[in-house]
Amino acid sequence: MCQVVEAAPHRGISRCVDATLTYYIDFVAKGASISGFPEWLPSERVVEQRVIDTLRKVFELNGFIGIETRAVETGASLLKKGETSKEIYLLSRLQEVGHESDTPIEDRLGLHFDLTVPLSRYVVEHSGDLAFPFKRWQIQKVWRGERPQEGRFREFVQADIDVIGAGDLPDHYEVELPLVMVSALEQLREFGLPKATVHANNRKLSEGFYRGLGLSDIEGVLREIDKLDKIGADEVAKLLVDECGASESQARACLELAELTAANGTELSEKFDALCAQHGIATDVETNESYALARQGLDTLAMIVDEAAAIRPGSVIADLKIARGLDYYTGSVYETFLDGAASLGSICSGGRYDNLASQGNRKYPGVGLSIGLSRLVSYMLHSAGAHANRVSPAVVLVAVWNEEDRTAANRIAGALRARGIATDVAPTAAKLGKQIKYADKLGIPYVWFPGSAVEGGETGGDEVKNIVTGEQTPADCTSWEPDTVIARQTVVID
Amino acid sequence: MCQVVEAAPHRGISRCVDATLTYYIDFVAKGASISGFPEWLPSERVVEQRVIDTLRKVFELNGFIGIETRAVETGASLLKKGETSKEIYLLSRLQEVGHESDTPIEDRLGLHFDLTVPLSRYVVEHSGDLAFPFKRWQIQKVWRGERPQEGRFREFVQADIDVIGAGDLPDHYEVELPLVMVSALEQLREFGLPKATVHANNRKLSEGFYRGLGLSDIEGVLREIDKLDKIGADEVAKLLVDECGASESQARACLELAELTAANGTELSEKFDALCAQHGIATDVETNESYALARQGLDTLAMIVDEAAAIRPGSVIADLKIARGLDYYTGSVYETFLDGAASLGSICSGGRYDNLASQGNRKYPGVGLSIGLSRLVSYMLHSAGAHANRVSPAVVLVAVWNEEDRTAANRIAGALRARGIATDVAPTAAKLGKQIKYADKLGIPYVWFPGSAVEGGETGGDEVKNIVTGEQTPADCTSWEPDTVIARQTVVID
Repeated sequence: MCQVVEAAPHRGISRCVDATLTYYIDFVAKGASISGFPEWLPSERVVEQRVIDTLRKVFELNGFIGIETRAVETGASLLKKGETSKEIYLLSRLQEVGHESDTPIEDRLGLHFDLTVPLSRYVVEHSGDLAFPFKRWQIQKVWRGERPQEGRFREFVQADIDVIGAGDLPDHYEVELPLVMVSALEQLREFGLPKATVHANNRKLSEGFYRGLGLSDIEGVLREIDKLDKIGADEVAKLLVDECGASESQARACLELAELTAANGTELSEKFDALCAQHGIATDVETNESYALARQGLDTLAMIVDEAAAIRPGSVIADLKIARGLDYYTGSVYETFLDGAASLGSICSGGRYDNLASQGNRKYPGVGLSIGLSRLVSYMLHSAGAHANRVSPAVVLVAVWNEEDRTAANRIAGALRARGIATDVAPTAAKLGKQIKYADKLGIPYVWFPGSAVEGGETGGDEVKNIVTGEQTPADCTSWEPDTVIARQTVVID
Repeated sequence: MCQVVEAAPHRGISRCVDATLTYYIDFVAKGASISGFPEWLPSERVVEQRVIDTLRKVFELNGFIGIETRAVETGASLLKKGETSKEIYLLSRLQEVGHESDTPIEDRLGLHFDLTVPLSRYVVEHSGDLAFPFKRWQIQKVWRGERPQEGRFREFVQADIDVIGAGDLPDHYEVELPLVMVSALEQLREFGLPKATVHANNRKLSEGFYRGLGLSDIEGVLREIDKLDKIGADEVAKLLVDECGASESQARACLELAELTAANGTELSEKFDALCAQHGIATDVETNESYALARQGLDTLAMIVDEAAAIRPGSVIADLKIARGLDYYTGSVYETFLDGAASLGSICSGGRYDNLASQGNRKYPGVGLSIGLSRLVSYMLHSAGAHANRVSPAVVLVAVWNEEDRTAANRIAGALRARGIATDVAPTAAKLGKQIKYADKLGIPYVWFPGSAVEGGETGGDEVKNIVTGEQTPADCTSWEPDTVIARQTVVID
């Protein structure tokens, strides 16, 4: 019933930045006992949690519906038939150890390596219960069964948005989704993230152009073009000739396409047509099938850059060398780069996929993007200077003079909490200096000194001290309010 | 360096309710393609998400720090030496298939089956970076490698709070933590959850009493007493005699202890001493080691019920037949039951563990409780009538008259979102009835009708319709506010 036509590529982690990736993992792995399984300290987790909260808020503001899928899929869903090169983890019950191979891989359970394969399966499985187009957000861990020696993340969080249509899917989503991601990333600038720019291309445009040149090994050409930033134009040209059967002139044409830039859709269209003419590709959709294919992609790409420029100038640009995941995507493809952090590679990637899921004759085309959240948070922490203003969510620590007074301290804490003020109580009736040190270590800004207990459970004469400024004032737990800026547990930049 | 002394028991899922558990899984599994791996529809996920948000809020109000640990631990951490009966999942890379057994189980990676073993490892690993006592909350998935035929959850979410001390841990946390859980569960009553009551016991109390009677197979006695609710007193008495070497009179004494109830700490203490006297146990801490042990447990339990009664009457009661996890817990143990849902079993369990983690000579004693969140949400959805008031987070759907007007519709949506109003835009410029139907299916309460576009990107003459009441009014996207009650995506009860 559910047919996942192709297993998904590695959205969200670009393969061209392994060296950099390793670098960030080294940062994360300080003290981690299993390499590739990052784990944050509490103060770092505050940053990750705020990033997740922020993304979720933007996704929901844009009408995306949150789902969570199970962590496992069947081997059949995760793998193309016969494929054994994927980096996936298979599961076996402890009791099955030694007999794992009794079960064919397609019937075994494995951990999902992205959120797109699970989404496709979920949509087909629950199609009767969903309204289409189905706009969903999903922030979850994924796993890759990499060799430990590779130094890559083997567990990380992805933050995805996708829209899935039933039967068809309007192309306006191909500009709206990258814009949602841009506006989400924009919100993270307050946490030190540089400006993000989405680089868009279209598979049909590239394929049509290559075919128009007379090339047939389209995947080969795309694979070599993908190396442009890493090895340079001369080397790529050489590979196109040596590996893909291109002539010198065809190779040069491919490079010219990859390097074509344009300020808007009209210019893109004119420059593309000029390039075609220059290389003998007839620019007639009626008579030239290759050009007709390219034109389809070009029109969508032109629409994307013009629409994006109208809504959020500078956020989405055409970049005709973007070649990622092209065995999987069928139209638009996106990568996202941060200003001044090119070596980090793409932090948010995706595209349109028309053939990922189907049910009988019905297709479920989709378009989506995925943020490699763990790597982004690692960058924010280690390069952008983001850190939590405090470890504890508590705004107030209630001091305890002696253990007999703990009930009174708990009552004060309860009154503050009832009014939404996060409050902790000192662990022991230690010397006051030690209690203040505990607050200080957790970053709790206020210490509350209970007054003497009086009749009826009421307290009188309480005072509260801002341990940063040293200011101490009388306070009543039924009415006192902390400074709203100080009260906020948030992310600050060095 | 990190030594996890004992693997944790199955906190959060009580073993005595398998039949009921199966029942709830059947509900969840409708349409789930892999048994035991529950997956919510979008509307059900809204309920789960609200439950998670609510718990997190209460945990943070109480000063608990959020962490997330990796999903895997080493076999050595997950298993006691030589143990092979645990229900855990081991991982193998696809490339290792057929060679899994080359790696000893203790060196393999497995999915965590609870959040306590990971916490213990995390605390020891990062002890230099943490402030103690370390109060943490953690809401994450856990996995149990159950046989598929068992019909149990194999993947589910747990919501845990724990406090870990370095060296020692004051016992006031043994009453404060259950009270935090009670106040969290109290918040869920608005979503249809019945009142929750924590039933507390103390391992030392039971063990001291049994030893005082002259029994030595303490674990055996506890295991049989644990069956009391399921098989009744007569059967338990028989098992105590047949399996644990108890005399008729010893068996009767064990049952009398299990059935002892008390309104407060003083009464508990008096009744316990009377029971000791009746069965020939000398109530002298100086001369009777067994009684001294029982007395320690009794004092803590008495403190817990009295303190809880002072702060939140009726929330925590002494229940001397609670016997769970006693190979693991060293003091207080808790189970939590919902009014009118006894067959559901305990929904929140835990206790004090003094020997779970250590580093050299330093111990890290802890106390914590765990909510079996997936099962709780299943109950709320299928028995308590909780459901989302709408599927989509969007408050407004902006209608699109024709595709040329989409930019204007997006601009209106952008203005509403900028003011925090979650907004979706119609997928296509279909007939108005179809657009309203889309809003209706997603539960979006307002449909926005853009007026005619005028110069400068401004729009004029917009109207907004409440599709429930049918009321339609002129509106300006820079100032219009939805009804605050209608705007809220929340959980309602049938």
